[in-house]
Amino acid sequence: MTDTMQRIVLASRPDGAPTLDNFRLEDTKVPTPGDGDVLVRVHYMSIDPYMRGRMDDAKSYAAPIPVDGLMEGGSVGEVTTSNDPKFKPGDFVMGPFGWATHGVAPAAQVMKIDPNVAPIQTALGVLGMPGFTGWLGLTKYGRPVEGETLVVAAATGPVGSMVGQIAKAKGLRVVGIAGGPEKCALAVDKFGFDACLDHRAHKTASELRAALKDACPNGIDVYFENVGGKVLEAVTPLMNLHGRIPICGMIAWYNEGGLGETASDAGLTGPKLWRTILVKSLSVNGFIISNHWSELPKFLGEVAPKVVGGTLAYEEDITEGLENAPQAFIDLLTGGNTGKALVKIG
Amino acid sequence: MTDTMQRIVLASRPDGAPTLDNFRLEDTKVPTPGDGDVLVRVHYMSIDPYMRGRMDDAKSYAAPIPVDGLMEGGSVGEVTTSNDPKFKPGDFVMGPFGWATHGVAPAAQVMKIDPNVAPIQTALGVLGMPGFTGWLGLTKYGRPVEGETLVVAAATGPVGSMVGQIAKAKGLRVVGIAGGPEKCALAVDKFGFDACLDHRAHKTASELRAALKDACPNGIDVYFENVGGKVLEAVTPLMNLHGRIPICGMIAWYNEGGLGETASDAGLTGPKLWRTILVKSLSVNGFIISNHWSELPKFLGEVAPKVVGGTLAYEEDITEGLENAPQAFIDLLTGGNTGKALVKIG
Repeated sequence: MTDTMQRIVLASRPDGAPTLDNFRLEDTKVPTPGDGDVLVRVHYMSIDPYMRGRMDDAKSYAAPIPVDGLMEGGSVGEVTTSNDPKFKPGDFVMGPFGWATHGVAPAAQVMKIDPNVAPIQTALGVLGMPGFTGWLGLTKYGRPVEGETLVVAAATGPVGSMVGQIAKAKGLRVVGIAGGPEKCALAVDKFGFDACLDHRAHKTASELRAALKDACPNGIDVYFENVGGKVLEAVTPLMNLHGRIPICGMIAWYNEGGLGETASDAGLTGPKLWRTILVKSLSVNGFIISNHWSELPKFLGEVAPKVVGGTLAYEEDITEGLENAPQAFIDLLTGGNTGKALVKIG
Repeated sequence: MTDTMQRIVLASRPDGAPTLDNFRLEDTKVPTPGDGDVLVRVHYMSIDPYMRGRMDDAKSYAAPIPVDGLMEGGSVGEVTTSNDPKFKPGDFVMGPFGWATHGVAPAAQVMKIDPNVAPIQTALGVLGMPGFTGWLGLTKYGRPVEGETLVVAAATGPVGSMVGQIAKAKGLRVVGIAGGPEKCALAVDKFGFDACLDHRAHKTASELRAALKDACPNGIDVYFENVGGKVLEAVTPLMNLHGRIPICGMIAWYNEGGLGETASDAGLTGPKLWRTILVKSLSVNGFIISNHWSELPKFLGEVAPKVVGGTLAYEEDITEGLENAPQAFIDLLTGGNTGKALVKIG
């Protein structure tokens, strides 16, 4: 076993969209696990939109990553050393090991994975945080009812594809939004969406709205919000009375630190949005998935059998090599990936 | 009994804030009630902010009033003719008789009032639509918990004073916002608010926010939204995690038809508002009280004894004479009234 490892740190804070300069690959010594810690050799690391927020020095629901600090994130890998009786070398686990080939974490932050149930990397996607986010937000805040219409963007991503499939199984009309004809075809053919609109083919919010109106003849009852921007602006006027909008993210606004406006969302003023919530009696709920871990067993109990049985599909986009993680992340933020973004390491 | 009556119609649609020109007082014949109708001589009519929305030709939760049409609104009065067995002449009732000295309505839209329980005009205020709005929005969507902090604007109005008193009784810290030192004193002395801030003394949203921060040392858990504009902008950054924002109205924006921006709220962009909902895990719910009538008996059962027993205070602002209703309404929209705005007729 080698005693050196690689990791990626935040070299500088991005000004708008991150560039490769904002990241630095470093060689370092494999850390020694302390009392109660486990040391893990990472097999797959997760690339997620929320990581963009951590790169800014702005107040959010989690502390920012310090400059020169390890890029944070979840990974799955194999335990090489365990100083906790719950784990032994060879166990597969998921934990907060960051953008690195190896990582140490307290046993309490690490979860065992059974590689015989499903491929280990599904613990980062369809059966992990993104899948759980889609399931929880839809179930708890979307409150779907048979016969209603749901819209979700990033339809082929790990959140959107979960939302769409669960809603479809509950008898809703499900309309996706995705970037490009290939993703739209995937949403319909693989994930069973009733329709999927290519937001690139509808440049403005009003063009997208016109297309949505056709695709949602009975209006929209649930809009699962994971992108913000143009899609939100297109959707809000089409919401039905008593509609629900769970909010788990707003990728379109992440590069402005969530605080500015882009040309595409300049039409969406606070008063307009607020008025729509009132006149349509909407229920809008933000949620942070880390506040809902207690419901993870329920999610796994319901969804894992569907994944194993093949009735719930998922898509992965795997990049090889830690050194390519920054580019994979940049691509993710501009919609360049298809499916759950993962980096395979070692 | 005279066979002529007076009524006020919408002479023209307002461009921004309504002016007296937008209204016209007319003499007309007292209508003849049809089968199943009651004819009522009005004693008090209600003046409410929502009426501003009906004057515009914009899509909202209710149809606009046509030009030359009767100004809509609720009234209380005495039945003079009844073509329905449930009512007899001399009964006191509440119903949608509009801005008029007399009115006809189907018996199903009319509710009997017992003048021995409380003064009849309370059926338009503390025990009517505004009081019910405050109670329902707070209870159902505000979900107040002892020890939390609540903020409500228009604190001495019939909605705000209900919200504040019910929250106070549940053990919350209650901070009001009102226009002018007299109203602020009333909120504290008569309605028992812990504090009340004069928004006129804090010109900008950030000044008001600084004052709110002092008045709410533990942040804000419930913001009962009934004004919009500067107050909303001041409040949102102070919301605690898992805060709740019931929305029943936005008087500050009504004169823009709810669709524009005023200088004071230009800082409140859609993305900023949306991001706050996400990062604070807020629950934002618009509601229209007419969708909740089934809970009226529960409200009356809980609140009427408090009003009768004197443990729940209310304030009325009574204008004499139908001809003065337009000015009373214009004053209401600019905060010129104190307490529930009523017009006494005949």
